[in-house]
Amino acid sequence: MAEGFVKSITKKSENFSEWYTDVILRAELADYGPAKGTMVIRPYGYAIWERIQAELDKAIKEAGVPNAYFPLFIPEKLLHKEKEHVEGFSPELAVVTVGGGEKLAEPLVVRPTSETIIYSLFAKWISSWRDLPYKINQWCNVVRWEKRPYLFLRTTEFLWQEGHTAHETHKEAVEEVLRALGSYEKLYRELLAVSGVKGIKSQTEKFAGAENTYTYEILIPDGKILQGCTSHDLGQNFSKPFEITFQDKKGKAQFVWQTSWGLSTRSIGGLIMVHGDDRGLVLPPRVAPIQVVVIPIPSTDVKVAKAITKLCQEIKKDLEKGEIRVKIDDREEQSPGWKFNEWELKGVPVRLEIGSRELESGELVAVRRDLGDKIRVPKNQVRKVVKTLLEDIQDNLLGRSERILKENTREAETYGEFKDLMGSKRGFISAFWCEDMDCEEKIKTETKATVRCLSLMAEKQESTCIYCGKKAESRWLFGQSY
Amino acid sequence: MAEGFVKSITKKSENFSEWYTDVILRAELADYGPAKGTMVIRPYGYAIWERIQAELDKAIKEAGVPNAYFPLFIPEKLLHKEKEHVEGFSPELAVVTVGGGEKLAEPLVVRPTSETIIYSLFAKWISSWRDLPYKINQWCNVVRWEKRPYLFLRTTEFLWQEGHTAHETHKEAVEEVLRALGSYEKLYRELLAVSGVKGIKSQTEKFAGAENTYTYEILIPDGKILQGCTSHDLGQNFSKPFEITFQDKKGKAQFVWQTSWGLSTRSIGGLIMVHGDDRGLVLPPRVAPIQVVVIPIPSTDVKVAKAITKLCQEIKKDLEKGEIRVKIDDREEQSPGWKFNEWELKGVPVRLEIGSRELESGELVAVRRDLGDKIRVPKNQVRKVVKTLLEDIQDNLLGRSERILKENTREAETYGEFKDLMGSKRGFISAFWCEDMDCEEKIKTETKATVRCLSLMAEKQESTCIYCGKKAESRWLFGQSY
Repeated sequence: MAEGFVKSITKKSENFSEWYTDVILRAELADYGPAKGTMVIRPYGYAIWERIQAELDKAIKEAGVPNAYFPLFIPEKLLHKEKEHVEGFSPELAVVTVGGGEKLAEPLVVRPTSETIIYSLFAKWISSWRDLPYKINQWCNVVRWEKRPYLFLRTTEFLWQEGHTAHETHKEAVEEVLRALGSYEKLYRELLAVSGVKGIKSQTEKFAGAENTYTYEILIPDGKILQGCTSHDLGQNFSKPFEITFQDKKGKAQFVWQTSWGLSTRSIGGLIMVHGDDRGLVLPPRVAPIQVVVIPIPSTDVKVAKAITKLCQEIKKDLEKGEIRVKIDDREEQSPGWKFNEWELKGVPVRLEIGSRELESGELVAVRRDLGDKIRVPKNQVRKVVKTLLEDIQDNLLGRSERILKENTREAETYGEFKDLMGSKRGFISAFWCEDMDCEEKIKTETKATVRCLSLMAEKQESTCIYCGKKAESRWLFGQSY
Repeated sequence: MAEGFVKSITKKSENFSEWYTDVILRAELADYGPAKGTMVIRPYGYAIWERIQAELDKAIKEAGVPNAYFPLFIPEKLLHKEKEHVEGFSPELAVVTVGGGEKLAEPLVVRPTSETIIYSLFAKWISSWRDLPYKINQWCNVVRWEKRPYLFLRTTEFLWQEGHTAHETHKEAVEEVLRALGSYEKLYRELLAVSGVKGIKSQTEKFAGAENTYTYEILIPDGKILQGCTSHDLGQNFSKPFEITFQDKKGKAQFVWQTSWGLSTRSIGGLIMVHGDDRGLVLPPRVAPIQVVVIPIPSTDVKVAKAITKLCQEIKKDLEKGEIRVKIDDREEQSPGWKFNEWELKGVPVRLEIGSRELESGELVAVRRDLGDKIRVPKNQVRKVVKTLLEDIQDNLLGRSERILKENTREAETYGEFKDLMGSKRGFISAFWCEDMDCEEKIKTETKATVRCLSLMAEKQESTCIYCGKKAESRWLFGQSY
C-alpha cells in the first residue's frame, strides 16, 4: 500500500534481529496478528509461499504421494498413545475446552503435528501388504504455543506440509526419509538459493517419538543455525501403540515401518535472513513474485511521457512472452527515487528504468538487486538479456550462500578452540563428540552451542570427544540454533 | 485400498441419506475423524477439492484478488465488535482456553469465518482512496460446531476460501459481490455440471452482520435445497465498528464499503448428491481425478496376456498425450467384474475394456458411466472418441441437472397448494411473499419450507402474499434446506 515515504530500515550489519523484523513489516511480507504469537502472511509474503508450495507439491506428487486432509482437532487420549511424543509436545499445546456453547467432556488438542490423528486412520485403512507403501501428504496449519514468538521462525500457528508413509520394511522407510530430505535440499538450493547441510540429529534433538530425525541445517549470516525442515524415521514407534498392522505375503501380521517429513513457512524466514542486505530483501528470481519492475522516469513533455508509457508496456508484454513476472510501477504520486528504494526493499531481482534518455538512445537501464550493477540494454534485446540476468542472479545467490557456509564452518580440535569460536564467530563448529547426552548438555550450558547434526557426508574416524576425551567416531556440527 | 469384495451400497432411490454416506465411505472420498463431527478427506475426495481449488483460484487471481493468510485464533473481544455477527456465530464456536500449559487470560475463538480478524488489519492497512479497492482471499479451515454432523455438508471443521474486499462506494462493493457470485455459478455449471439459482437471501437467512447475502441454491434430487456458496454485501456494518476509514479525494475521512464471499468443501457434497446413482458416484469429466479407467481382461494364454498389457499401456500413453487422466487397473487379485463395479462406484466417466477379443478385432469397448452405453472404438481412434465422449458426458450431466431443476420448480398460487407440494414433491416452490418475517416463520413451522432466495431473474409483479394476503411484489423460492 502506498505510504507517503519509505522509512529507513535498521541495517543488517548493525542489528540483525531488528533488521529482520523491519524488512518483513516494511516489505509487507507479514504483520502481527491480534492474538499473541500469531502472524498474518500478507499477499507479497504469501506469493512466496505459493511458489514454494507449487514446487514442493509437484515433487511430492511425482514421488507418488497424494494429498489428503485430516482434522485440526485431536482428542487428548489419541495424543497420549505414544509416550515420548506427548511428552515432547505437551508444553506447546493449545486446547479447546468449550464447543458449541458447552464444556467438552474430552478436551480437544489443536494439532501441533498430525502423527497421532493420521495413524489412528492408517490402522483402519491398512490391512494387507498390497496396501503398502501407503503414502499421504497434507498442507495445513499447525499450532505450537510460543513463549518467544519471532516472525516466520517461531509463531504460535504456522503453515506447512506433512508427509506420512507406511512401509513393509525398515529399509524402505529409510529410503523414503532420505527421498523426502533430498527433495527439501533441492527446493532450498534450486528455488531458494540457500545452501545447507544434510544430516542426522542427535538423540536429544530428534523429533519426539522418532527413531531418527534427518534435517537440512542452514547457516544464517548472524552466525546462528536454522533447522530448515525435518524428515523422520519413525521405526515402529507409532505403529505399535496405534496397532497399524498388515498381513505379509506369508499371511503373518506385521507392524508397518513409518516416516513423516515436513517443511514450513519458516523456510521464508531462512530465505529472508540468508539473502537480505542493508537495503532490504533480496529475492532469488525463481521464487520472486515480481522478477522485474519497470519504472518510468516522468517527463514534463506530454508527447515524451506518452512514448515512455507505451515503451514500458511494450517491454512488459515482451518480457511476459518469456514467462517473466513483470510489474510497471506507474504511480504518479511517488518519485522514481522513492520507487527505487521501495522495490529494492522488496527485493525485486531486476529494475528497468525507462525515461526520455532511454527513449532517445534505444537503450534501457537495467539494475540488478544482488550486486547493484547498472547495465545498458538495447530495447530489442531486453528479453534475452533479462533472462540471462535472472539466471545469473539465481546462481550468484546460491554461490554466495555456499561460500558463506564454507567460510563459517570451522573445525575445533580442543574444547578451548571450540569455546573461542562460539564466543566470537559462531557458525558451524565441526568437532568430535562421543554422542553422550551428558557432554551435549554441558557443552550447551557452557557455550550455548547445541548439536545441529551429523552431516551425511561425514566420514568415520577414530578420535576422542572434544569435551570428555572418551572415544568418538565422527565430527558432529555444533552451533547456536534459532 | 484393496478389499476382498465390493460391498453393495444402499440404493439412492430407496434411502437417499444412507446411499449418500455409503457412497462417500465406499468410494473412499472421506471418512469420519476421531473427534465428533470431524471428517477426513481422503486422497480421492481431496483430488476433487484440488481441481475445484485450481479452477476457482485462477478466477480469483484474474479478478485481481491475491491470496494471504490470517490467524486461526481470534481474541474473543474482536469477535464481539459487530453485534449481529457475534450473536449469529456464538452457538457454533470452539474456544481455546488453555495454551502452553496455562489457562489463558482471554479465551481464543477458533475462526468460524474471518471477517473480524481480517478487518482488524484492514483498519491498519487502509488509509487512502489510493489503497482502494483492497482485496484479499484466503484458503483455510474454519470451525463451526455441529450438533447434527453430515459428511461434507455439515462438519465441525471444513475447508473453504473466503474473499474480503473494501471499496470506496456501495455500488462498487455490490459489483464485487455479484462478480464473485458469477464466478461461483460458472464453477458449479462448467466444472461440476450443477445447475442452480442465483438469488438474494431473505433478511432472516442472510449472513450474520451482512446487509444482504447472495447465494447459488442447488436442487438436490431428494427434493431438498443446498446453499452452494454465499457472497455478502456487508455495507458499512463492519467498517464502522472496526473503524476502517480512508481519506477520499477531497481529504475527507470515509468508512469503506465491504464484501465477503466463500465457497467450501460442501460443494463436493452437492456434486455427489446431484449426479450419483444407485451404483455410486457419477463424476463430471472435468472434475474427475481419473477420467478413464483401462481394464485388461485376463487371458490364460501368456502371449495374449502380454499383448493385452502392451496395448493397455499404449492406449494410456496415447490418451495422456491428449491430457486425459487415465489409470490402468491391472491388479491380479481382482476379477474384471469386480473392477467394473468398483470404478462405477468411484464414478469414473469412461471405462475401456481390453481383452483377447479386442486384440483380435482392433476395437476396444468403451462404457460411459452416466448412461451405461457400450461403444466399440477402433484402437487408432481412441483418443479422439474418448475426448468427444468426455465432453458429451459433461454436457449430458449439466443438461440433466438443468432439467431436474426445471421439473422441480413449481409455482404455488395458494397456501393450500404450497402445503401440498411441500408434503409431496418438495423441490423449489415459487410463491408470492410479503417479505414479512412473521409469515416466513409461520410457513417454516407449518411446512418445514424456508425462504431459499429471490432469484436474480425474478420480475416484479403486483400480487399478494400466499400466507397473509398482504401486498407482495415478487415470487420467492421456498424449499426445505440442507
